[in-house]
Amino acid sequence: MTPASPHLGILGGGQLAQMLALAALPLGVRVTVLEPDAGAPARLCATHLHAPYTDAAGLDRLAGCDAVTLEFENVPAAALGALEGRVPVRPGRSLLERSKHRVREKRALREAGAQTAPFVAIETGADLDGALAQVGGRGVLKTSELGYDGRGQARVSDGAGLRAAWQEMGHVPCVLEGLVDFEREVSLSVARGPDGAVAFGPLIENVHRNGILRTSVCLEGDAHEAGAREVAGRVAAAWELQGLMTLEFFQLANGGLLVNEVAPRVHNSGHLTQDGGGVSQFEAQVRAVLGLPLADWRPLLPCAMVNIIGAGGQEPDQQPDWAGIDALPGTHLHLYHKAWRAGRKLGHVNLVAPDPATLRGRLAQLEALIP
Amino acid sequence: MTPASPHLGILGGGQLAQMLALAALPLGVRVTVLEPDAGAPARLCATHLHAPYTDAAGLDRLAGCDAVTLEFENVPAAALGALEGRVPVRPGRSLLERSKHRVREKRALREAGAQTAPFVAIETGADLDGALAQVGGRGVLKTSELGYDGRGQARVSDGAGLRAAWQEMGHVPCVLEGLVDFEREVSLSVARGPDGAVAFGPLIENVHRNGILRTSVCLEGDAHEAGAREVAGRVAAAWELQGLMTLEFFQLANGGLLVNEVAPRVHNSGHLTQDGGGVSQFEAQVRAVLGLPLADWRPLLPCAMVNIIGAGGQEPDQQPDWAGIDALPGTHLHLYHKAWRAGRKLGHVNLVAPDPATLRGRLAQLEALIP
Repeated sequence: MTPASPHLGILGGGQLAQMLALAALPLGVRVTVLEPDAGAPARLCATHLHAPYTDAAGLDRLAGCDAVTLEFENVPAAALGALEGRVPVRPGRSLLERSKHRVREKRALREAGAQTAPFVAIETGADLDGALAQVGGRGVLKTSELGYDGRGQARVSDGAGLRAAWQEMGHVPCVLEGLVDFEREVSLSVARGPDGAVAFGPLIENVHRNGILRTSVCLEGDAHEAGAREVAGRVAAAWELQGLMTLEFFQLANGGLLVNEVAPRVHNSGHLTQDGGGVSQFEAQVRAVLGLPLADWRPLLPCAMVNIIGAGGQEPDQQPDWAGIDALPGTHLHLYHKAWRAGRKLGHVNLVAPDPATLRGRLAQLEALIP
Repeated sequence: MTPASPHLGILGGGQLAQMLALAALPLGVRVTVLEPDAGAPARLCATHLHAPYTDAAGLDRLAGCDAVTLEFENVPAAALGALEGRVPVRPGRSLLERSKHRVREKRALREAGAQTAPFVAIETGADLDGALAQVGGRGVLKTSELGYDGRGQARVSDGAGLRAAWQEMGHVPCVLEGLVDFEREVSLSVARGPDGAVAFGPLIENVHRNGILRTSVCLEGDAHEAGAREVAGRVAAAWELQGLMTLEFFQLANGGLLVNEVAPRVHNSGHLTQDGGGVSQFEAQVRAVLGLPLADWRPLLPCAMVNIIGAGGQEPDQQPDWAGIDALPGTHLHLYHKAWRAGRKLGHVNLVAPDPATLRGRLAQLEALIP
């Protein structure tokens, strides 16, 4: 870090890019985003190149940055191709090609020594035969690409249901994953600089609702953090990560950790790192991508997060109790400046507290304030 | 707070406006600044009206905001006049007229029941006669307006020196303040909503160097906080504050608190509230100005701040040890994107730690890293 102002490019201008930019500015970093949506959240705190991700002039501008990162996994190959050799893109193409494709991702995870649920790649109708039996009789069919927040997924428990689900998905390449009886879902991020230096975020416990993350909690001294770090570090090294990636795990009753999914970026669960006294995941990604010094980032205080998701309309009774949130000690509001829409992530509330018991009590109150 | 996005106008676009905007965005607040400097820090995270503070078109744009606040005290009267009756300006004109003029300020403080150092207003040469004796024989001559960070000030201890200092200042209206033997300098901010609801920041201990704030520290349970709150609350009510103001105090050996100065805004000493797990002073000002719910804001963790001030050149050995700062646990860098210049505030480093002893130890290390 020097007073010379580094320039960071971001592919995408949504709320993750917005929060990356908010974390970058105090580091002396200027930020430019390439994003086709005129009303995208990051426009408020970054130079906004309002153009498609494959726009040649826009990509030329990004190529003039010191490094380029991203806020979503499905970066068009043409965009990556246009930047290649002109500016470091972190994470890079080979990692993105793994993480955006569920079958390649799971294979590459196993090659790196990580465990996953049993799975079968479904590419032709013939792949359906016996697939359920191979994954334990019950499973989740997921499109190999472009799924997120529970979209492009269906639970299946017999052959007819599996065939129907695949037809419903338009016979695109899918993966059938065995259903796992897990104790809880946890996540952990790892950052790795261009020099190979590695740092970790905290272990975070996650609860989903309707396939979308609802609540995350981070308490000190989670017994499974060391194991999750070990897996994340192994994958980061094997995949030659530059930047930051987040592993979602199923934690089994016997303590085993299966990697469910990898995101090549900051993650919704890590938003709670913004207000707990430590470095945030957003600063960690900025640092890793620009080759700035890195250290493990973790909140110094017990903290949690609850997502604000469009609840199906503009009716006041379906909105969060804004006054109640403000009145609850330790809350930090984060709104993304997005138009209200059912099912859309509109913001989140972080909660910090001096001790875990206080956090748990206030978290229950907070959850009751957000529909 | 509702999902309808309030719009905040700010007179000024320096680092305080920049940090106000960075705190406003997550609240769902859009920010527009009126600022004549094309390279001003706030341009990076707010809509920048690049025009003089008295520009009619710029002021029309601010008049369309939900409320207008400021980051400096010397707002031209013409700007305030142009906004009056069209949009709430918080703090308002009568408070600004007090706080920007040292003599009026001190008189208004005393009327509100606060204590100040002894002082004499110097408006004509005749006012100099006997002035030093009235303030105790030794004093500081300060211009009544436009001084900051130690500029427009001179220590005097005899009549000849007083006359010479006043001549040096061009015979402008001044105040001669008696020199106070204080134990330490402390500050405390108070916010007050349009409805009269009041909330307080923490008591902060400050150390100056060459007239400019160098280090601030905030520890829990400062014995003088209650007294400082009492004074601040009394002044806020008497002055009908809307918004946020900061009182700087001299704390005497007997525990008495003399108000040295009032700033009608967030204050350099309060920067440490950004990273301690609580609400920041910037969020508090935004909330007070927009009439959003307010609560006392204080760090949940012991924290401190060291200013980064241009040390006289571009020579590397006069720059902060950036790598050392990054390597010290608990540091949070805040750079303002300003060009390096001797004596200029370029940024600050916040430091948070799990306990006061750790904070003290690391603060000594941090101070050694910043020239």
